[in-house]
Amino acid sequence: MTEALRTDLYQLTMMQAYWKSGHNPEATFDYFVRKIPFGSYLITAGLTYVLDYIENLRFEDDDIEYLLTQGFDSEFLEQLREFRFTGDIFAMPEGSIAFPLEPIIRVTAPIIEAQLIETFLLNKMNFSTLIATKASRVVHAAKGRAIAEFGLRRAQGDGHLEATRATYIGGCASTSNVMAGKKLGIPVSGTMAHSFVTSFDHEIDSYRAYADAFPKRCFLLIDTYNSIEGAKKAVIVGKELEMKGERLLGVRLDSGDLALLSKEVRRILDGAGLDYAKIVASGDLNEWKIEELMNKGAKIDMFGVGTELITGRPTPALDGIYKLSDVVERGRHIPKMKLSEETVKATLPGKKRVWRFFEDGKFKKDIISLEDELIDNATPLLEQVVKNGKIICKRPSLDEIRQKAADNFSNLHDKYKKLEGAPVYPVEFSAGLVALRENIIEKIKREEIQE
Amino acid sequence: MTEALRTDLYQLTMMQAYWKSGHNPEATFDYFVRKIPFGSYLITAGLTYVLDYIENLRFEDDDIEYLLTQGFDSEFLEQLREFRFTGDIFAMPEGSIAFPLEPIIRVTAPIIEAQLIETFLLNKMNFSTLIATKASRVVHAAKGRAIAEFGLRRAQGDGHLEATRATYIGGCASTSNVMAGKKLGIPVSGTMAHSFVTSFDHEIDSYRAYADAFPKRCFLLIDTYNSIEGAKKAVIVGKELEMKGERLLGVRLDSGDLALLSKEVRRILDGAGLDYAKIVASGDLNEWKIEELMNKGAKIDMFGVGTELITGRPTPALDGIYKLSDVVERGRHIPKMKLSEETVKATLPGKKRVWRFFEDGKFKKDIISLEDELIDNATPLLEQVVKNGKIICKRPSLDEIRQKAADNFSNLHDKYKKLEGAPVYPVEFSAGLVALRENIIEKIKREEIQE
Repeated sequence: MTEALRTDLYQLTMMQAYWKSGHNPEATFDYFVRKIPFGSYLITAGLTYVLDYIENLRFEDDDIEYLLTQGFDSEFLEQLREFRFTGDIFAMPEGSIAFPLEPIIRVTAPIIEAQLIETFLLNKMNFSTLIATKASRVVHAAKGRAIAEFGLRRAQGDGHLEATRATYIGGCASTSNVMAGKKLGIPVSGTMAHSFVTSFDHEIDSYRAYADAFPKRCFLLIDTYNSIEGAKKAVIVGKELEMKGERLLGVRLDSGDLALLSKEVRRILDGAGLDYAKIVASGDLNEWKIEELMNKGAKIDMFGVGTELITGRPTPALDGIYKLSDVVERGRHIPKMKLSEETVKATLPGKKRVWRFFEDGKFKKDIISLEDELIDNATPLLEQVVKNGKIICKRPSLDEIRQKAADNFSNLHDKYKKLEGAPVYPVEFSAGLVALRENIIEKIKREEIQE
Repeated sequence: MTEALRTDLYQLTMMQAYWKSGHNPEATFDYFVRKIPFGSYLITAGLTYVLDYIENLRFEDDDIEYLLTQGFDSEFLEQLREFRFTGDIFAMPEGSIAFPLEPIIRVTAPIIEAQLIETFLLNKMNFSTLIATKASRVVHAAKGRAIAEFGLRRAQGDGHLEATRATYIGGCASTSNVMAGKKLGIPVSGTMAHSFVTSFDHEIDSYRAYADAFPKRCFLLIDTYNSIEGAKKAVIVGKELEMKGERLLGVRLDSGDLALLSKEVRRILDGAGLDYAKIVASGDLNEWKIEELMNKGAKIDMFGVGTELITGRPTPALDGIYKLSDVVERGRHIPKMKLSEETVKATLPGKKRVWRFFEDGKFKKDIISLEDELIDNATPLLEQVVKNGKIICKRPSLDEIRQKAADNFSNLHDKYKKLEGAPVYPVEFSAGLVALRENIIEKIKREEIQE
């Protein structure tokens, strides 16, 4: 199915107005984030979807028919039948680390084409980047304990699959989402719910039934009635498994004071010789609660995290935007920007690049420059991924993207990874960009605002 | 495509354990919400998706193949090939008003079947109900001004379509999402972005180009450089439209002090004889900001609301749960519940119904009763929608659901609609339910917890 109509109506009305007025210059748009909702960095994700979209972007007959009912010009709609994206795209690869104001994607195309793709690009990049970033925080807080993503039931509907994909890019070890396992190859995990326990006459009956069905992968949920009593019953079933030559993998706590309970349960398991059994904890967890549990010395070997991870709570949206920075008219580049009463909403003019400096293998600072400025001893972060509408980059596998994110993350100084109060990573503007910005502001004030 | 694997892994492991142990009693599960994230009521939505899912629920060959790679028992998987949902479902119709702890959906089926559908049901009901509820708050705050939903670019990825559907059920008048227009018949709206304005040499050139392309539906975005200057240019183009026998529909403000700017812009438009032109406002709006704007006497005729509406910010997930309340063994009903150290996480046992009392046409109070209790002078809220696996209810259109939600909302006392500090709507437990709950707690303490 084509996604051409997965866009805001105004993209199509603007396209018709561009077409009607014969105003279709080559335009450059930047995708960037103004403000990071939590922490100091972003893990970029979602580019895969943008490339698939670009490759398949067509208006089908029924799209055109629908638009006819919405009052569009029939001659304009005939043009849409031939619509293809023919431009160039530069992007940071998926799994990059980016900072505010840095172009993460730069699109150059006839403005009719570059305008259409805005909404889809924002929809996909904002969400995947948000969740990959959130996941990296949760994973970091767990200091090497595995994070299992349990969020499908609280995910925002059909967004579940890309959300799970993004949690994996951000470092989660597994998901409860079986469809994500099948479609994306992500390891799946999960054992039993409270309903399994309550459906039997007695809690221990449920444990025995489960151990019988899965002797080699038996985790028992112990908090249905009382976690300590549950742990004692788990020991009984663990001993029964030992007699069959098997081992209880572990137990799961899903409520109560997890730091305290995990220590008591650890004692109960160890005291019975089940020191090999793991303790999994879940229940409305997030990066802050995990950090607190680790600081309290909780005896938890693995965390299951749902709602907060899969929705980005408390900030379920990234304010990434897609802004016009340059048009070419009669062969001349005309840099563009938006002013605003709110300074933070002003944008950076001109076709730009992003550069990163390293020191001892770690990220030192970034510079945003104009396209024609060369910055010495720095690595350019934007790579060409689409040329004349054709995808020219390698398409890494999901595991390669995840590994890239992990490698990048290891090159970020620890101070930027603090959950609260992380310093701002230095992102500078080149001399050329600063001068251009001042020029354009002057020009706008002169020509558009009577002061 | 079948959605059978859109589930948590543990549903499938539990199913295998139920199957292996021959424990497959008829079970009843309730879908209900513990705590409402904002305000005092819920607008239910999402049932349409649950019914479609039930109707089409099958395991395909490639699902089975995938599960084989995950270590499931091949004999169990052969059973899954024949899997069909054969149970009964009672539900509040979409567009109902519900309150905490009330069963919104009640599923009765062999436990293997009832268990599988949990995750999909939660994923869909939690999200659609959250967004429909959020939308009704935003719509209510606008006191009759239309709300246009503009959230696609910040929606959680593929969840955009059902989110837009839910905003429409909650009372929004239109959406920017063209695909939602095409697929769901929701009215679409939108005109131009800042990039349209900046792409031209001068702001007024962009206005003229737009007015020329859409003389009968011309809204001009006036805040790209300066809202007051933009309004003056809009007047010029409005006068040019008048000369052609057309009328400027209005202008849009997207930043700055919207209360103040809207009054100044209103004066500029009125002073030039364009009193017919409307003012639309947008820019990070939500129900609280809209209420504040209305209280300040802002001259705004329509609001565009994006991020907050489409994600439910600041609470992007509803904590709706699906809990076992009853199993039938050897012909006897055995009520079930979960205890918890956190009292709020305990559940209500037994097969239940929900009743509503009216007074002067308004909702007075609700009662949750056991299945076999009859409550006089009250209306039962759960209707049978699935019988022996077949859908037996009417399938209302989206506009019918939206109308039903509006009718229900008008029967809710205004005090429950306050954005902050609304009282708790009275939901009582019947005498039978209270007695049963106490009995079961005693039994659990006796049998499962050594005290």
